Amino acid sequence: MARSVWDLLLNWWENIISPGSSATKLLGFAFMEKKPSHHDEILKHIYDGHDMKNIVVLRHCTVPNSLNDEQSNHIQLKQHTEREVEPEGSKMEIDLVGKTVENKQIILKGYTDGSPLETDMELKVGDGLKLEAPKGSNAIVVKNLYLSCDPYMRGRMRDFHGSYLPPFSPGSAIEGFGVSKVVDSDDPNLKRGDLVSGFTNWEEYSIIHKTKTGQLRKIEQDDGIPLSYHVGLLGMPGFTAYVGFYEVCGPKKGDYVYVSAASGAVGQLVGQLAKLHGCYVVGSAGTSKKVELLKNKLGFDEAFNYKQELDLEAALMRYFPQGIDIYFDNVGGAMLDAALANMRIHGRVAVCGMVSQTNRTDTQTFRNMFSVISKRVTIKGFLQSDFVHLYPRFLEDIKGWYKQGKIVYLEDMNDGLETAPAAFVGLFSGKNVGKQVICVASELPGKGWSLTTQEIDANGGQHRSNQQRQV
Amino acid sequence: MARSVWDLLLNWWENIISPGSSATKLLGFAFMEKKPSHHDEILKHIYDGHDMKNIVVLRHCTVPNSLNDEQSNHIQLKQHTEREVEPEGSKMEIDLVGKTVENKQIILKGYTDGSPLETDMELKVGDGLKLEAPKGSNAIVVKNLYLSCDPYMRGRMRDFHGSYLPPFSPGSAIEGFGVSKVVDSDDPNLKRGDLVSGFTNWEEYSIIHKTKTGQLRKIEQDDGIPLSYHVGLLGMPGFTAYVGFYEVCGPKKGDYVYVSAASGAVGQLVGQLAKLHGCYVVGSAGTSKKVELLKNKLGFDEAFNYKQELDLEAALMRYFPQGIDIYFDNVGGAMLDAALANMRIHGRVAVCGMVSQTNRTDTQTFRNMFSVISKRVTIKGFLQSDFVHLYPRFLEDIKGWYKQGKIVYLEDMNDGLETAPAAFVGLFSGKNVGKQVICVASELPGKGWSLTTQEIDANGGQHRSNQQRQV
Repeated sequence: MARSVWDLLLNWWENIISPGSSATKLLGFAFMEKKPSHHDEILKHIYDGHDMKNIVVLRHCTVPNSLNDEQSNHIQLKQHTEREVEPEGSKMEIDLVGKTVENKQIILKGYTDGSPLETDMELKVGDGLKLEAPKGSNAIVVKNLYLSCDPYMRGRMRDFHGSYLPPFSPGSAIEGFGVSKVVDSDDPNLKRGDLVSGFTNWEEYSIIHKTKTGQLRKIEQDDGIPLSYHVGLLGMPGFTAYVGFYEVCGPKKGDYVYVSAASGAVGQLVGQLAKLHGCYVVGSAGTSKKVELLKNKLGFDEAFNYKQELDLEAALMRYFPQGIDIYFDNVGGAMLDAALANMRIHGRVAVCGMVSQTNRTDTQTFRNMFSVISKRVTIKGFLQSDFVHLYPRFLEDIKGWYKQGKIVYLEDMNDGLETAPAAFVGLFSGKNVGKQVICVASELPGKGWSLTTQEIDANGGQHRSNQQRQV
Repeated sequence: MARSVWDLLLNWWENIISPGSSATKLLGFAFMEKKPSHHDEILKHIYDGHDMKNIVVLRHCTVPNSLNDEQSNHIQLKQHTEREVEPEGSKMEIDLVGKTVENKQIILKGYTDGSPLETDMELKVGDGLKLEAPKGSNAIVVKNLYLSCDPYMRGRMRDFHGSYLPPFSPGSAIEGFGVSKVVDSDDPNLKRGDLVSGFTNWEEYSIIHKTKTGQLRKIEQDDGIPLSYHVGLLGMPGFTAYVGFYEVCGPKKGDYVYVSAASGAVGQLVGQLAKLHGCYVVGSAGTSKKVELLKNKLGFDEAFNYKQELDLEAALMRYFPQGIDIYFDNVGGAMLDAALANMRIHGRVAVCGMVSQTNRTDTQTFRNMFSVISKRVTIKGFLQSDFVHLYPRFLEDIKGWYKQGKIVYLEDMNDGLETAPAAFVGLFSGKNVGKQVICVASELPGKGWSLTTQEIDANGGQHRSNQQRQV
């Protein structure tokens, strides 16, 4: 009989983790689920009697109500990395305004045409940033809570000005989507303590100038939805999946839908939306673990590990003997070519990303382009930013479906700004499982900690920042 | 002062061609333009006093009302190839019904995966065909007048069953679009003497069975429009241009439009429709002669010889400094890739043909696929056969515009069934100027000859079947 997850966690805490911990390397966890009462109860149990500085929280992680022995081995332990705990909430903002902070940043060292490396970026301690929005500036000062790692950002690491976003500035902090809390505001529409999502920088605190504050979205807090989802399920990737599927793919009930990079930030939602729409959905990913998640957590009808297929065309023919109506392409290259060979008449390819393409002008070889004519295929590239008018409808739909349990969302949470370069680089080798997020400072409503964790694999020793959320 | 073309032609006839002709190698010409009266007058002038068997007619050729000396050198002379003249009209059909003819055919010898060669086909004299539609068969027997050479036919020479049309049958006559006259009919909807266009075979006479007669279109004769146009301007290529431009490209006034293979059967009409729609149009072709035609006869704003460009991307950037809204692609491959690099945001690529692709699964290399995302490009393959409901509107529009002089159409007319293999193969090296048609038996309304001609270049000696029609 499977043990209760509560029993399991408490047992671990009491018998495995606490006893051997040093004061500075205390391990711990918290468990957050849809019932905040449980969450609080567990948290209280964990930190009672311990120095709060040394608590490490496996944040926002939900697991099934019962676990078998195999599953229980997968529960991830977290190691504290000695980050100072800061109080948050209104007290935090009042305390911080006007103060000067060192403000760690991740800067781009220089442009790169190849596959990005960790060494293309570096952690830099700033010269000191005064947390104050100058009067008349309309600017805001924010504390960054969550930063988003997205494949499109690679394009901004190139010295190429012809794309839809300008390149980054070498020597400056990398720009990206994030969830941030307003520390000080000269913008009449935003006040201290407000939470916003939108473009911010890879640093602890950012000044967001007037020209950019208009792009920010004020987040309405919702205890049922984790804050970090505002760069994932409810952010750019989720919106990309939503408009890509409904507006670009032209789906019909019964369509045969194929999604590549299917466990990623966008793909996992596309597959679930397609299922809700009455489609037959197959996804591909690059590890057997991801394939299992696609089939068992995300509700895909079928899934396969493309790295185990010698012939992608043949693999798709096996999973789609009748052909593909919709291919939601996140990878480009050889997979796009293989899909073209398997499209049905009047098939649609929504081209969302080309993560397989290392350089902007990488040579890609196609053997099946003629299918575009013979099968009357439409290949349509799109950017979510062309569909902003649909954002309110998206938010309403997705929040509703999430709360009704119709969709779930996998996150891969890294803790600490300093882990961002490795996390970003990992996107291109498929290290992430689900949406890759960096937690810079956690924001547990009503609690107020800032924590950074690093994973120790269950079998010991191997460090990789990785926290998977299964909802 | 330019001479009248009438003077020029009559002068040629009287002083240059007639005097030196032997009885079996008489050269001649006719001139057909929008005023049939002129046509008849010239014809009468030519054949009066000569054996009708030996008349060679430069059929359906219109030239400007005046020519300068340079232009007059380009008027093409025709050499008779000793084909027996058959009477046509209602008398013809009555005479032929029930007779057995040898029925020359062009057969496909075997499947070929490479670029088609003349030797892949051969002229075969049949075993004898009785020109009679069996009672109860619903079949018709037709005399083929014009046959169409179209690039798509290459696909049917491969042993590949996965495309939109089945492969040809080796050993049998090649199937293709044609204009034919009904010799005998057991189909209640067609009677002797009716003219039809649609699928027929590369042979002198064809029996078209019940399953295929439904695909035939009865042609309403129109003295203002040459019969052969029913496999060109008013046939599949013209309809392809029409639906491709209006239904697939989504054109707007002021759009920047690029057409490849622009002097071909489809491209020439696409460019003219785009001009009528208020677009800026640039075409590419493979000879300077074609480039001149595009600019001076077909009304393209600009045109260039792609064979003289070392860098196609740079060439397109030169002609479209502001980018391309619509690329009507007839060639695929490197040109498609170059166009992708030059598309504007929300640009559309209508993929009509891939004449650059020798094999069905030829490897094509793309460097600019990412533009599909960054520029939100739609690449849409299409087949005209999906738009048959628009055919009546097409016919009305195109006939009207043609008669109003708003559009012209270039044909490359080969004479004689035996020239068909060379003409077909020539499509893939761009030998044709305009729509490639084979005249098997001419059909001059009210006259009734069957003629075959071969070109002698003005500078003597070089034989290539080629008769260019400029309307």
